[in-house]
Amino acid sequence: MYRSHSCGELTSSHITQEVTLSGWVQKSRDKGFMIWVDLRDRYGITQLIFDEERTPKTVFETAKTLGREFVIQVTGEVIERVSKNPNMPTGDIEILVKELKVLNASLLPPFTIENETDGGEDIRMKYRYLDIRRNPVKDSLIFRHKVTMEVRKYLSEQEFIEVETPYLIKSTPEGARDFVVPSRMNEGQFYALPQSPQTFKQLLMVGGMDKYFQIVKCFRDEDLRADRQPEFTQIDCEMAFVEQEDILNVFEGLTRHLLKEIKGIDIEKFPRMTFDHAMKTYGNDKPDIRFGMEFGELNEVAQHKEFKVFNSAELVVGIAVPGGASYTRKEIDKLIDWVKRPQVGALGMVYVKCNEDGSFKSSVDKFYNQEDLAKWAAATGAKAGDLICVLSGNTNKVRAQLSALRMELAERLNLRNPEEFAPLWVMDFPLLELDEETGHYHAMHHPFTSPKPGQLELLDTNPGDVKANAYDLVLNGNEIGGGSIRIHDKEMQAIMFKHLGFTEEEAKAQFGFLMDAFQYGAPPHGGLAFGLDRLVAILGGQETIRDFIAFPKNNSGRDVMIDAPAPIDDEQLKELSIKLDIQA
Amino acid sequence: MYRSHSCGELTSSHITQEVTLSGWVQKSRDKGFMIWVDLRDRYGITQLIFDEERTPKTVFETAKTLGREFVIQVTGEVIERVSKNPNMPTGDIEILVKELKVLNASLLPPFTIENETDGGEDIRMKYRYLDIRRNPVKDSLIFRHKVTMEVRKYLSEQEFIEVETPYLIKSTPEGARDFVVPSRMNEGQFYALPQSPQTFKQLLMVGGMDKYFQIVKCFRDEDLRADRQPEFTQIDCEMAFVEQEDILNVFEGLTRHLLKEIKGIDIEKFPRMTFDHAMKTYGNDKPDIRFGMEFGELNEVAQHKEFKVFNSAELVVGIAVPGGASYTRKEIDKLIDWVKRPQVGALGMVYVKCNEDGSFKSSVDKFYNQEDLAKWAAATGAKAGDLICVLSGNTNKVRAQLSALRMELAERLNLRNPEEFAPLWVMDFPLLELDEETGHYHAMHHPFTSPKPGQLELLDTNPGDVKANAYDLVLNGNEIGGGSIRIHDKEMQAIMFKHLGFTEEEAKAQFGFLMDAFQYGAPPHGGLAFGLDRLVAILGGQETIRDFIAFPKNNSGRDVMIDAPAPIDDEQLKELSIKLDIQA
Repeated sequence: MYRSHSCGELTSSHITQEVTLSGWVQKSRDKGFMIWVDLRDRYGITQLIFDEERTPKTVFETAKTLGREFVIQVTGEVIERVSKNPNMPTGDIEILVKELKVLNASLLPPFTIENETDGGEDIRMKYRYLDIRRNPVKDSLIFRHKVTMEVRKYLSEQEFIEVETPYLIKSTPEGARDFVVPSRMNEGQFYALPQSPQTFKQLLMVGGMDKYFQIVKCFRDEDLRADRQPEFTQIDCEMAFVEQEDILNVFEGLTRHLLKEIKGIDIEKFPRMTFDHAMKTYGNDKPDIRFGMEFGELNEVAQHKEFKVFNSAELVVGIAVPGGASYTRKEIDKLIDWVKRPQVGALGMVYVKCNEDGSFKSSVDKFYNQEDLAKWAAATGAKAGDLICVLSGNTNKVRAQLSALRMELAERLNLRNPEEFAPLWVMDFPLLELDEETGHYHAMHHPFTSPKPGQLELLDTNPGDVKANAYDLVLNGNEIGGGSIRIHDKEMQAIMFKHLGFTEEEAKAQFGFLMDAFQYGAPPHGGLAFGLDRLVAILGGQETIRDFIAFPKNNSGRDVMIDAPAPIDDEQLKELSIKLDIQA
Repeated sequence: MYRSHSCGELTSSHITQEVTLSGWVQKSRDKGFMIWVDLRDRYGITQLIFDEERTPKTVFETAKTLGREFVIQVTGEVIERVSKNPNMPTGDIEILVKELKVLNASLLPPFTIENETDGGEDIRMKYRYLDIRRNPVKDSLIFRHKVTMEVRKYLSEQEFIEVETPYLIKSTPEGARDFVVPSRMNEGQFYALPQSPQTFKQLLMVGGMDKYFQIVKCFRDEDLRADRQPEFTQIDCEMAFVEQEDILNVFEGLTRHLLKEIKGIDIEKFPRMTFDHAMKTYGNDKPDIRFGMEFGELNEVAQHKEFKVFNSAELVVGIAVPGGASYTRKEIDKLIDWVKRPQVGALGMVYVKCNEDGSFKSSVDKFYNQEDLAKWAAATGAKAGDLICVLSGNTNKVRAQLSALRMELAERLNLRNPEEFAPLWVMDFPLLELDEETGHYHAMHHPFTSPKPGQLELLDTNPGDVKANAYDLVLNGNEIGGGSIRIHDKEMQAIMFKHLGFTEEEAKAQFGFLMDAFQYGAPPHGGLAFGLDRLVAILGGQETIRDFIAFPKNNSGRDVMIDAPAPIDDEQLKELSIKLDIQA
């Protein structure tokens, strides 16, 4: 037996007991006649004491050789500490060691195993097994486990059944790029890894499972944006005999349960907002509503003067930055530079200082008088002391730009408190989205999403206006979940495929099994999927997901620790009936 | 809202209530003036009644058109049934329908949706979504969910943390064949899908996670034997600072918990048996101990006579078949034919009838007298009325043959009661296994398994004799779990790789990250993995796993429902820098 207790559990109630502990040397202090070692395991840290007078000589000598991260086993008596540490659960006691065994030595780690480490991202990824020893990573993984246990508990109590769907499925070129797997037994054929279990969960509804969920890995072979992973985890859910309202209620219940159980936060009812309203008010379909700075559209009050930039713009829109009137010219110039960065892409920014005395000072005083600017302040809700930032141009572009500015300013003004949680349903998404490059429409959510009742006719005339039974759950400016009521009728599904540019043959080849299934008594159904990595990160008060994934990949999709992907044997290629086709 | 209640919950306490139900038409009986419909959902069946006098005319007319598996919604009053059905939870009531809506019609299903269906395996796999509506499949999937929930609950309470390990990892030619995934972003390189998270769980131990588990899909590209799947699910577990005894106790606890919670069965302490003993006594490392028929070795009592077949055999061994003395000559001949089938491979079988009067009648009476045969009976534990079946030949082969015969006879004699559970630990497995074809040794468990203390020296001289800290959990003749104490020392791991025929370069290229990790304070650790599919099937009283997997593949690794694998686009191949290389 390697231990009688963990390193996190001994208190003054154990004093005089003989205990055995195992763990890692966090640090040691050698005072010559006395050595203190902090022994660490997952559960905590316990102080060991080796004392020239009371510790056997050989043990004392060995203790002198212990380096950081050595793995040791000790036996000794729990004694009261002379100088207690009230900040540690075990701070009242220490172990007077009488037996010591080095279970495994350690080289000096390439970075310090401390909460604040000196290791950069790259080295920490290469030695991820050491990084995991650090509390911020270790605690994040334990936190993730706690969240998934609560998710399973809640859904299971609501009679959801977790069903495993297959990982080796069929490639469907529509949508994002698939990872594929050559089949050895079926020459020239490939499996694909699922981008989501979408069609399978729908088939489970056809199969009468009624309420399904699964915490499941999904795969997308996309060029990786920051903080995206080629493999990611979804809480995937589907229900039969439901309308949108039923789904919103169930998953609002789940999210409320998590906020309560995990964060101790009670949130009564989640606000709801249409997609159109979100775009108009926040320039964004996943608005962070923990703070204001709502958009004020200024076309009416700004397009009657000589200022050509505004007059020629499709949209003139501004936000009021709290306290921004005090910004110096230099600070404002920096803000203008910020919106002109290629990542944001604005051509310029007009600003209005709302002085404490009620007067206004703007960068366009030549064109607008105090009365005009007062109207701007009214439209943006600006108060004395605020700064109004105004952008103009193409509606979609300018909304995205102003949304980016709004988020950046909120960040700088510390308005995005990670321990405050503001969930929001965004609803009534458009069914289709115009691809500006090709001029074709594609499904905004996916081809299985049903249009709102009575809007099917619009598909031919105004496809961009058709709204879907689709909804997103937004938390603190992040989309944490999204879903829809699905089509469950073969004819409607066929119409949808047609409008998405599928020929009948293509639709049949790729989704024939689903269309067939719809003919054998498919119930009305719908569902939702949460992005677990993101959900856990946000609940954990973080913006990046990487510490909540045990072994993440880098932006080239590489696992730098195991050095994957890697070349494979010619023999393997031959068995799979493929060969490399590398462009020189 | 599609329903106020499920089809499984209404009882006489609901009489007079107006309810709305949705579900499938299980069957309908049309008596002309009265129509009864059994409405089914996941939760049960409720009887609907449509009555010429009390039901609105249009509703009544629609009810006449309902076919099997139509999806309908009804509203009506819960009324008391005239002829109650005490075998149904809802058997006291029926619904007098006043509103009926056909939510979706259904073609006639290709097989009946009944517990006993008329559909063959192939058609049921093609329409798996219909097969899932049948109780045997539906209940198996719900049962599986219940088992996994209990596993997670138990392990989580024992402070295990579920950690997700990556699915896109690196191919290691050692062991079974990997499924590989070409990387688009890393030209000419491949990921592999994990055969198990073995190295990652060991790295989590190096990372201090202390107790890990994961219910996880694993992948093996093997030619599929019956009842094997290319993707399968493991309950994967690992613990640090443990000896074999600790692991056995924890996972015996888990298994005991499952037997108790799921089956209501209390099993005090699981018996333990060495590998050598299991092979000698049952010819098998996963013996079914629900019944006797233990092997009796007969070399000493059978090799002193003129019977050359036995005299030249390495092993002469028999079992006593209870009541077998009454078998006719024809029945025994059939048994002999059975052991001579190529799948079993015996050259013949000697038998002894133990007559009720204490005399013996054997097929080798020419060589053995009554006294000889009495010794055979003593060695095999045969009693009056039994039949002794004796095989001889090469030890390993004859054990396998007699084991097959033992299992076959137990099946025929109904000694394998699926509702009786006999768990067993088999321990002290050999570290290495001789590959008879190549003459090389390979790891019996895997290359990370540690030899028993003090046996390392034997590796050079008697590699086949080295025992490992490896153990299997056997349930009713099936291996449901297996594991080992791992090597945690870089030097020992290097020695092991060397003995398995790895060059230093190969070991470094494939497992360098693990060997590196061992240098930074790797704790002693070990673990175990359960095969979830098999575990669930056995707990469910079944021998085959297929009904416990929602969407299984056939023996060619195909999903016949979605028709995968399938060819992919040339464009996809090109992006992945591979091309087909099909041998004409």
